[in-house]
Amino acid sequence: MEVSIVTIGDEILIGQINDTNSTWIAKRMTGLGLHVCETVSISDHPDQIRSTLDRLIGNTDLVLMTGGLGPTKDDLTKETLSSYFGGKLVINEEVLETIRKFFQLRGRNLIESNRRQAEVPEACRPLPNLHGTAPGMWFEKAGTIVVSMPGVPYEMKPMVDDQVIPGLKDQLNIPKLIHKTIMTHGVPESYLAEMIEEWEEALPECMKLAYLPRPGIVRLRLTVRGKCAEEAEYLFFEKTEALRKRIGDHIFAYEDTLLEKVLGEVLKQKKVSLSTAESCTGGNIARLITSVPGSSAYFKGSVIAYSDQVKAHLLDVDAETISKNGAVSQEVVTSMIQGACAKLNTDVAMATSGIAGPDGGTDEKPVGLVWIAVGDRENVFSKKFQFGGHRELVIEQASIMAMGLLLKHLKGLLN
Amino acid sequence: MEVSIVTIGDEILIGQINDTNSTWIAKRMTGLGLHVCETVSISDHPDQIRSTLDRLIGNTDLVLMTGGLGPTKDDLTKETLSSYFGGKLVINEEVLETIRKFFQLRGRNLIESNRRQAEVPEACRPLPNLHGTAPGMWFEKAGTIVVSMPGVPYEMKPMVDDQVIPGLKDQLNIPKLIHKTIMTHGVPESYLAEMIEEWEEALPECMKLAYLPRPGIVRLRLTVRGKCAEEAEYLFFEKTEALRKRIGDHIFAYEDTLLEKVLGEVLKQKKVSLSTAESCTGGNIARLITSVPGSSAYFKGSVIAYSDQVKAHLLDVDAETISKNGAVSQEVVTSMIQGACAKLNTDVAMATSGIAGPDGGTDEKPVGLVWIAVGDRENVFSKKFQFGGHRELVIEQASIMAMGLLLKHLKGLLN
Repeated sequence: MEVSIVTIGDEILIGQINDTNSTWIAKRMTGLGLHVCETVSISDHPDQIRSTLDRLIGNTDLVLMTGGLGPTKDDLTKETLSSYFGGKLVINEEVLETIRKFFQLRGRNLIESNRRQAEVPEACRPLPNLHGTAPGMWFEKAGTIVVSMPGVPYEMKPMVDDQVIPGLKDQLNIPKLIHKTIMTHGVPESYLAEMIEEWEEALPECMKLAYLPRPGIVRLRLTVRGKCAEEAEYLFFEKTEALRKRIGDHIFAYEDTLLEKVLGEVLKQKKVSLSTAESCTGGNIARLITSVPGSSAYFKGSVIAYSDQVKAHLLDVDAETISKNGAVSQEVVTSMIQGACAKLNTDVAMATSGIAGPDGGTDEKPVGLVWIAVGDRENVFSKKFQFGGHRELVIEQASIMAMGLLLKHLKGLLN
Repeated sequence: MEVSIVTIGDEILIGQINDTNSTWIAKRMTGLGLHVCETVSISDHPDQIRSTLDRLIGNTDLVLMTGGLGPTKDDLTKETLSSYFGGKLVINEEVLETIRKFFQLRGRNLIESNRRQAEVPEACRPLPNLHGTAPGMWFEKAGTIVVSMPGVPYEMKPMVDDQVIPGLKDQLNIPKLIHKTIMTHGVPESYLAEMIEEWEEALPECMKLAYLPRPGIVRLRLTVRGKCAEEAEYLFFEKTEALRKRIGDHIFAYEDTLLEKVLGEVLKQKKVSLSTAESCTGGNIARLITSVPGSSAYFKGSVIAYSDQVKAHLLDVDAETISKNGAVSQEVVTSMIQGACAKLNTDVAMATSGIAGPDGGTDEKPVGLVWIAVGDRENVFSKKFQFGGHRELVIEQASIMAMGLLLKHLKGLLN
């Protein structure tokens, strides 16, 4: 099954944004076992949309389009698709109702341009948009399925996952491809590959391993092709057990999930309350922790101590400790843990202090140096890290490392 | 002058990497005033390369290709181009010399696969690669220039800047395309479009407007085609002034930038120190503020008060105020501002309290309801918002709104 992905709009063509929509969709389609043969970005211009469809329809099985569906005058895709597939634009009552609810919820009234968004081509099956106002559209012509979706990522992604993929599964004979993801933390990809080399080489023919690295985390994705669910389950079980014996301490989940979620579950289960005391991570750990729904059950709060004054005043870090050792030191992060647990009245805490860059580094304390501590009032584990990359990446790596260390602390794997 | 950009290789088609080469090239070409009409990613397969060239040659003036030129067996682009443009592959002595020097410099000897990289199609003018071993190739056919370049960014980029662009300037009469971006905050796209409808309709033929929305922010991009820099500057000045009169209060920058950067510049310039007191945004505002290099000059820190206890203990919010009005209330966010300014010793602060969801909503206080306050010890502005979308989006919208309000407060636009 051949898939083409079409992005509509000028932002990519003038080089203003990277085309991350196509990458995301390509990954999803590849995960389904489909073959993406082309991704193309074109301008929101009727002639170009038509000629691209002329070329792809009949030559590929599925065309996934994003963008060009906004309420403003520069968005011409819907009109073009309507005339291309025949028929006129008609108000769809179901879509209108979705849009009305969308605005009602936000306490605003429909204006004419919003009402126009409920118009869809007669030739399509509309796909309601639960996160915005422009509906998706499902067309079929000459054996090719053409789906047009909004370009806003948080509107497009749920539409693909909740409507397009189930629709494709209903209609097509998609080959069996079963995945299992194992999440590891704290070991760089190349080291991990060396640690599990033998295990990887012993995988059967039908199994494939992919390393999917993120800052501080490597996802291992195992894929089984052409086996039934039971056989695949058994293979996964066997291989995962063998992996657990080798690198179990570094695995934090046997499914594709987030470290902050797993940490939250452990905290909730152990009834342990959490706070953070952040300097160089500037609130990023708190943001990750609170991105998890229900985190208020275990997360009490944070002190972001960007200045020494705040470290002293709100976290009771001794001013002398700071002046003697510097803010980026083992003594200060240790003291921040104790201060956070006491002042925010929590069982455990995480603390960071470092140099995120690009400025502020010295020979002795270069950019990327971060002291991280985790623990409780009595028992604090602290370690110095040297992270690479730009400011954002230093902050992200330090945040993930702090959460991974706290998880190991809670499991009794540190010390 | 119409330009197409072609990326060759499977990494993009399986969603493994974002196509940043095309974005970079597109920006360069747009900067030259050329019009990029399409970017396309295809697989390194002779049939697909040929059919793509068939389609683009004659229809566009310039085709810029990257990728597919490696020394391994899966790279077929060079052979395909050689047969497509006619003639055979021949060793180019100049290229061979460049490659030999490349290896000499690294103290390694040429192996056969490296020698093969000095073979180029007879029909091309080779472009020496000073940062790697695969040369670029410049072809011409039916009035179209086709340039093939390596896909490795640090090999491709200097080739574009030092060889391709000077070559184009020599050969072509390049028309001008000039952009200007205006950043607005706090008005949804459809409302903004209504507010500036008249202004938009009065734009001259040579000017085009695009709406580029993000959570809480709409970027307006004006493009002028076929004018010299002075004329374009004048047009931008005139139209921007007219826009400022209509919606000036909602514009925070006249260039493509971030709200947190602009806010930081104003704080630095006014010598005003900042703290945040965050409940539902959970540290996201602090993270955005500290993502800006040098933010420690004005940002002192935050209290993330996820529990009522922390609000009372660290921000001096009266326990009775909370029990009487609820944590999500005007009284509480106002008190949080005063507490943050006092406890963190800053001139101004931002505060949030709301229900990010998906749980925790009631009829009276539904998910998405957020109270936001900005101000100083004496003068606090607060407002209730009803945001839509999932948890992450509520948090992001509330964070952007808080920063936008603080900026307006600093400019004296509130009250």
